[in-house]
Amino acid sequence: MNLTKTAVLRELHQGPHILVLPNAWDVASARIFEEAGFPALATSSAGVANMLGYPDGEKIPGDEMIAMAARIARALRVPVTADVEAGYGDPVRTAQALVDAGVAGMNLEDTLAHDPGSLVDLSVQTGAIAQIRAKTDVVINARCDIYLAGIGDPATRFERIVERLNAYRKAGADCLFAPGVRDAETIGRLASAVNGPLNVLVGPGTPPAAELERLGARRVSVGSGPMRATMGLTQRIAKELHDRGTYSFLEVAMPYVDANRLFDER
Amino acid sequence: MNLTKTAVLRELHQGPHILVLPNAWDVASARIFEEAGFPALATSSAGVANMLGYPDGEKIPGDEMIAMAARIARALRVPVTADVEAGYGDPVRTAQALVDAGVAGMNLEDTLAHDPGSLVDLSVQTGAIAQIRAKTDVVINARCDIYLAGIGDPATRFERIVERLNAYRKAGADCLFAPGVRDAETIGRLASAVNGPLNVLVGPGTPPAAELERLGARRVSVGSGPMRATMGLTQRIAKELHDRGTYSFLEVAMPYVDANRLFDER
Repeated sequence: MNLTKTAVLRELHQGPHILVLPNAWDVASARIFEEAGFPALATSSAGVANMLGYPDGEKIPGDEMIAMAARIARALRVPVTADVEAGYGDPVRTAQALVDAGVAGMNLEDTLAHDPGSLVDLSVQTGAIAQIRAKTDVVINARCDIYLAGIGDPATRFERIVERLNAYRKAGADCLFAPGVRDAETIGRLASAVNGPLNVLVGPGTPPAAELERLGARRVSVGSGPMRATMGLTQRIAKELHDRGTYSFLEVAMPYVDANRLFDER
Repeated sequence: MNLTKTAVLRELHQGPHILVLPNAWDVASARIFEEAGFPALATSSAGVANMLGYPDGEKIPGDEMIAMAARIARALRVPVTADVEAGYGDPVRTAQALVDAGVAGMNLEDTLAHDPGSLVDLSVQTGAIAQIRAKTDVVINARCDIYLAGIGDPATRFERIVERLNAYRKAGADCLFAPGVRDAETIGRLASAVNGPLNVLVGPGTPPAAELERLGARRVSVGSGPMRATMGLTQRIAKELHDRGTYSFLEVAMPYVDANRLFDER
């Protein structure tokens, strides 16, 4: 039996190995990640927004974000999960649009871009997750921003994020995302305390994927880091070309034939 | 008096300094090049096509290519010239669409993607250039592919490309583009033989911009080289993340705050 991409993506959260998800920002990066052997891909909301000319944080129209996730999903054989921030004002509509476009999974954040220091009411967030669960089969990665945004008393953060993530799981989330948690000790405790697969976001100091697996995390994503690495390279290319009029980018460029081959009909 | 972007771009071809044009493939790369101080930017057809999931060579629908050039042009204060290959079946319509979208310049090639070894009839190509010139003020960069595609007897290439480029100039082209010409001796002879500003494309062995200026070239562009450099980096990031589960891309990434600041309202 052929599993749907959604079923494949869901199954990849069941272990024993951690699901390492690179985050693409256009079709070129997506095809490169797919060719490297990853069994599934994510998108980066910051990466897609920047690529299309917007800052991160729901400044991009939701339809543009969904269209790029759909374009990436169409180009790949492996399942794609889309970072759609807090759902662009209507998480259920956004989820349905992703499913209609062949996207297998989605993130849903519990802070809003215009008020990043406050959490969405728990009942509102669990209600949205439950509605998405009832109406679609999309793989839901429910994100809690307590650590990332530094919300509330640090002494109670751990118990508050566990409460939220377990409520999201009960409402129907497939995976529980705790960006901003980076030290091994907290990751290990959190993986034990939540009732579902834990997703860690890579940042400075995050342990390697193998150690995250040992700590009990089931999924790790890299956010906009790779896109920002290419932006850093572009900045160095720009400076050299502008200031010195030389072209050392030629030495590290993917050959033209190899680049185009990524997009041949398959 | 405020000059239009089209007038600014045209003026940049008058010397004494060579116009160094980086080729962007999305809004992020375009904003980075603009911030580096370039007075104008180009787009790369291969870069935009790959970014959106197509191989180079008019496989992308013309409207998608024009829309991305327009998006880049809207995001910048400096003029943008678009690589629109051979005009997607209707060079005059493509030129008008670019002008309507605020794009200041365009390339026009004299080979067709489905038959890259043959030149478009001279009268057809000069007719298209003359029509574009009559109907729009767009800065026309007329490209001849005799060297790039290795068309015809090598012994007559030089005289044939001079004949073509000068006919394009007479029909109304602002700049004359000879990709595939890379050695200093030929560049110098060609700059003297053509009756308009000469555009050189960077490839392996191309002299630095300062030497191109000394040889008489008036414009140099880098094609898809920078985009393919970022694809090379993405491939290395993918391999490291997949094979070792580590994140050295963090060390070369543009900081998140700096990346987003590129897209603030100005």
